[in-house]
Amino acid sequence: MEIFREVNKVQKKSLEEKCKGNVIGFVPTMGYLHEGHLSLVRKCRENTDFCVVSIFVNPTQFVAGEDYSVYPRDEERDKAILERERVDLLFMPEVKEMYKEGYQTNVEVLKFTKPLCGKFRPGHFKGVTTVVSKLFNAVLPNIAYFGQKDYQQYIVIKRMARDLNFPVKIQMMPIVREKDGLAMSSRNSYLNEAEREQAVALYSSLKRGEELYNSGERNSSKIKKEMGKVFSQFPLVKPQYIEVVGAEELDSIEKIQGKVLIAVAAFVGKVRLIDNMLLGG
Amino acid sequence: MEIFREVNKVQKKSLEEKCKGNVIGFVPTMGYLHEGHLSLVRKCRENTDFCVVSIFVNPTQFVAGEDYSVYPRDEERDKAILERERVDLLFMPEVKEMYKEGYQTNVEVLKFTKPLCGKFRPGHFKGVTTVVSKLFNAVLPNIAYFGQKDYQQYIVIKRMARDLNFPVKIQMMPIVREKDGLAMSSRNSYLNEAEREQAVALYSSLKRGEELYNSGERNSSKIKKEMGKVFSQFPLVKPQYIEVVGAEELDSIEKIQGKVLIAVAAFVGKVRLIDNMLLGG
Repeated sequence: MEIFREVNKVQKKSLEEKCKGNVIGFVPTMGYLHEGHLSLVRKCRENTDFCVVSIFVNPTQFVAGEDYSVYPRDEERDKAILERERVDLLFMPEVKEMYKEGYQTNVEVLKFTKPLCGKFRPGHFKGVTTVVSKLFNAVLPNIAYFGQKDYQQYIVIKRMARDLNFPVKIQMMPIVREKDGLAMSSRNSYLNEAEREQAVALYSSLKRGEELYNSGERNSSKIKKEMGKVFSQFPLVKPQYIEVVGAEELDSIEKIQGKVLIAVAAFVGKVRLIDNMLLGG
Repeated sequence: MEIFREVNKVQKKSLEEKCKGNVIGFVPTMGYLHEGHLSLVRKCRENTDFCVVSIFVNPTQFVAGEDYSVYPRDEERDKAILERERVDLLFMPEVKEMYKEGYQTNVEVLKFTKPLCGKFRPGHFKGVTTVVSKLFNAVLPNIAYFGQKDYQQYIVIKRMARDLNFPVKIQMMPIVREKDGLAMSSRNSYLNEAEREQAVALYSSLKRGEELYNSGERNSSKIKKEMGKVFSQFPLVKPQYIEVVGAEELDSIEKIQGKVLIAVAAFVGKVRLIDNMLLGG
């Protein structure tokens, strides 16, 4: 596995591979890799000819007061894991390589960034779309892989790529869960034992929503209300939002028709976690 | 000369040419070509292996009340000119190819867009940086050529390309002028005979600024005041701004040191024209 820290080196290498006729696959990450990331990496290995992973804890997507400075990092462990997965190239830039002095350019998706996490993390998605644009221009991938856990991010990036003519296919991969159903996340490492036990609240709430949907309930207020009741059984967990939205445009819906997303965000102690499930369609 | 109207066709062709080892040069235009455009095209032909020109009157860079609907267009004439210049590929997309239904993504440069034209055309540069990002992702050029007449646009795009890691070199070419000094512009076609005669006011004002600079004057207020006096000799011409700014960051300066830009915008009748000159450095 080659490791590059400079944008122009990655660009050169990717173009060389493309010109050999190789399909470039790309998995952008913030590191501290878990099985969720690895499911993306393995799909990338399987479906493309040259697999690039990036590790970059992007400062601009953390909102004021969030956990940028303490976000978990373990470069050596991540490198060993990616080596084992036979990744071809690891791109691991410094912050000053990605944000040069006098940096002043943003990429912004206007509509799909407004609901769900967008309501509570103003500027977060602007940071995401900006850094993903920069990463796409560095790695020049044909296909990029994103996890369903960050479903809104997937929808936002897919629209950005389409709108800006990025020649990149955006592919989503399913959520990978712990045995009790907790969605894998680097932030799970923040949880103490009691919090870890109660963190299953998010998944339990989604399962309750799914159950109601499967029993024929189509009123989203009713479903959200019942999902909320699940959280009351977990005193360490405070839901931030419980939403039912259209799966394509993330628009609020009252009567469920077609494919929808049920999505939750909650604080487990001081740790903010998210989870979601697709229904119908 | 090949003519493409679809983004994916241009992408495919450009990548093929790149993979042959060819350097792709790109001249983005809004058509209605004049000698200013052709100086860019000729430089592109001279310095690159595969010369792409785009013609696209971009609706999002026209501010409310501006001349989008009446902006001069002549596709057949432009095609014949570019054929004669031995351009390799003309990219001429429809609006709906560039802005698909549900379009909602912008690229924005925050600081360099604020002074000069940015003060009077809010949103203009956001439209420019967005469309140029889209065009870069379609044409995948190695070098893109821009005219000095739109000097602020050049500075903004150069920063955007750097900030977003576009693997594109941004090159500026000198202003091409009519015999009396009027900077070439597609908008000059709007002028009636009397207006055309007085349109030289912008260049005359810049020449007066240059003269003062060459005689040792370094106080920018003094220079701007004298430049303003020139306009009073042209009753059909109303200056919108007369500015002296740093040539790299477009920052206001009082005492001139190093390389500076003197820039003017003025209404000649109802037609808004701009012009500029680089001094010192």
